[in-house]
Amino acid sequence: MAAKNDSPGSFSLPGGHTLLSGQRLESIEVAFETFGKLDAQGSNAVLIFHALSGDSHVANGPDVTGRPRDGWWADLVGPGRAIDTTRYFVVCANVIGGCSGTTGPGSIDPATGASYGTRFPLVTIEDMADIQAALLDSLGIARLLAVVGGSMGGMQALAFAQRFPDRCASVLAIATTWRLGAQAIAFNEVGRTAILGDPAFLGGDYYGSGQPESGLAIARMIGHITYLSDDSMREKFGRRLREREGHAFEFVSEFEVESYLAYQGRKFVERFDANTYLYMTKAMDYFDLSAGFPDLVDAVRGIDARFLVLSFSSDWLFPTYQARELVDALQAAGSEVSFAEIESPYGHDAFLLEPAEQTRFIAPFLASVYADGRDTRGDDAR
Amino acid sequence: MAAKNDSPGSFSLPGGHTLLSGQRLESIEVAFETFGKLDAQGSNAVLIFHALSGDSHVANGPDVTGRPRDGWWADLVGPGRAIDTTRYFVVCANVIGGCSGTTGPGSIDPATGASYGTRFPLVTIEDMADIQAALLDSLGIARLLAVVGGSMGGMQALAFAQRFPDRCASVLAIATTWRLGAQAIAFNEVGRTAILGDPAFLGGDYYGSGQPESGLAIARMIGHITYLSDDSMREKFGRRLREREGHAFEFVSEFEVESYLAYQGRKFVERFDANTYLYMTKAMDYFDLSAGFPDLVDAVRGIDARFLVLSFSSDWLFPTYQARELVDALQAAGSEVSFAEIESPYGHDAFLLEPAEQTRFIAPFLASVYADGRDTRGDDAR
Repeated sequence: MAAKNDSPGSFSLPGGHTLLSGQRLESIEVAFETFGKLDAQGSNAVLIFHALSGDSHVANGPDVTGRPRDGWWADLVGPGRAIDTTRYFVVCANVIGGCSGTTGPGSIDPATGASYGTRFPLVTIEDMADIQAALLDSLGIARLLAVVGGSMGGMQALAFAQRFPDRCASVLAIATTWRLGAQAIAFNEVGRTAILGDPAFLGGDYYGSGQPESGLAIARMIGHITYLSDDSMREKFGRRLREREGHAFEFVSEFEVESYLAYQGRKFVERFDANTYLYMTKAMDYFDLSAGFPDLVDAVRGIDARFLVLSFSSDWLFPTYQARELVDALQAAGSEVSFAEIESPYGHDAFLLEPAEQTRFIAPFLASVYADGRDTRGDDAR
Repeated sequence: MAAKNDSPGSFSLPGGHTLLSGQRLESIEVAFETFGKLDAQGSNAVLIFHALSGDSHVANGPDVTGRPRDGWWADLVGPGRAIDTTRYFVVCANVIGGCSGTTGPGSIDPATGASYGTRFPLVTIEDMADIQAALLDSLGIARLLAVVGGSMGGMQALAFAQRFPDRCASVLAIATTWRLGAQAIAFNEVGRTAILGDPAFLGGDYYGSGQPESGLAIARMIGHITYLSDDSMREKFGRRLREREGHAFEFVSEFEVESYLAYQGRKFVERFDANTYLYMTKAMDYFDLSAGFPDLVDAVRGIDARFLVLSFSSDWLFPTYQARELVDALQAAGSEVSFAEIESPYGHDAFLLEPAEQTRFIAPFLASVYADGRDTRGDDAR
């Protein structure tokens, strides 16, 4: 069953916005979708942030173009799901810098009449959070039941809670980190190098001529290796050859894992913009929840929210030790934190592939936060 | 002190050679170096195989061009080292398909008078072993005290022992595997895709126009990430920025790990040939010591040699579990095996960066095999 998608739509940020870099965007459109109904008290709103290659279409139903399509987290968001759209009002927006309806490098710069390309200012995870806060204002949502995100989405959830500590009762940070380590930055940089070095990149001004497909495909192939685990790759592909008995003794895709990666690369260039890939990975690299604070404990001290932190045992891109660092800091700062490392062979992709295990933690957590809110409202009314 | 390099030289394989693929090379030159002196009984020869980007210059001294240069394994091979060149006679040759003196894709095809390029036949780890066996024939070395190799060199050592079970008294297989898993093949394939997709590649015929530097640099950057460990990258780089306080908000190298990778990429294209990179990675992907046998135990059953297998705790490219699979099979086949997993934070690079720990195992092992040989010769003489 499709979640009722009440308003796929877009929102124009009035008066523009100054980014963390100090640069200004005068004109911002935000593509967003909502699922379910905001209750009378406005107390059941859940803001979900998407990951690197995601968009606002988190649950099933017609997307912003009106086309019915599966949501990227439909196993977790929808009627009767962990984030139950018959109970909660879900908001999900494409991030600033994105390529799925929200203003990004592929958008027309009103000052020039041409696509921004790499003249689009660098955006940060904090900017993504700020702009979605403005979207909430426009929707009349003062306070959220929860901010939720996996991977880059989890970074945004953490940034949102830090920047708007009174606007969320809870934070669900899944398969994410408070800052990337050197290895993850390194993988991102190789992907960017492949895109920037592709002759079709043309300094980012390729919108008339076709995008740097080779570079973007290479970036995506690297990404896919990091989203899986050694275990899951061994199980999924092993050393199996594709449609042949012996070796070709030529430079062609022979192993199944090779054709899988090639396919993922090809598929990605059809739906994603290379410039956006550059902007999203840079935003992730820059993100450091502790930046500007003496340490991570101080960085999270002001957040009065309940936390659910989930990591996955085989996720080596957003490893459990980083989730634990966050959990330790939250506890040291006096926050109420639930934490689980979910056993899974699926690597980082587990946040997309392990709905049942996540539901076990998310559904009761959200229900409990929602019940807390009702109690509080009861107290206020007495 | 430099190891005395008695004969940097080259050897022409008489009569050509038929490769595992069935293709034939009529003309093969092998660049090799020797260190130390073969003893009167011819019983102290050690053949060392190099890894992907290595060459015959394993110890210090003048290389094949006559230029004095540090050897790539000088901490382990030289006078007084674990592989003591005052005691053992060390032979190291550039592999077939290489770009450091031995015939490879950059060599002139005598049939056409032009560089082979990708018309050079695909070579396998087994071919590398076979051709070095022919080199030993030419040097009058019937039987080796040891075959030794790390990484791709370890694969060659295993292949040599399997193909010439009577020609080596011992096998030292370090930071290596009996076959790569899907993840390692995947990384190799992304590197190849970057090279093959670089417009400067020109189907491999770039020798007149300059090689595909962008693609080769990307391949090397990916390689370097896999040679390090998450731990060592965190320790070496963390999130430190290079020569600046805050972020650039531009698509430039900012994190130290980014400039390190860019530097490694640039440095590599100056000394290595992109076609050889393709051939070496393909040879590694193809290698499966158990191929053609019911299982790995049967594959190693015929090898009458003592084994020393070393792995490194943080090596995720050639992980310990694969070394253990080899050790288990060798033991099941009745071989005498010493195995150690050396604790190291340096990832796969540990085989180059941890000489002291390796010396602790290699020096006594080799001495013991050498002593065994003397005993045997004594027995024979009685």
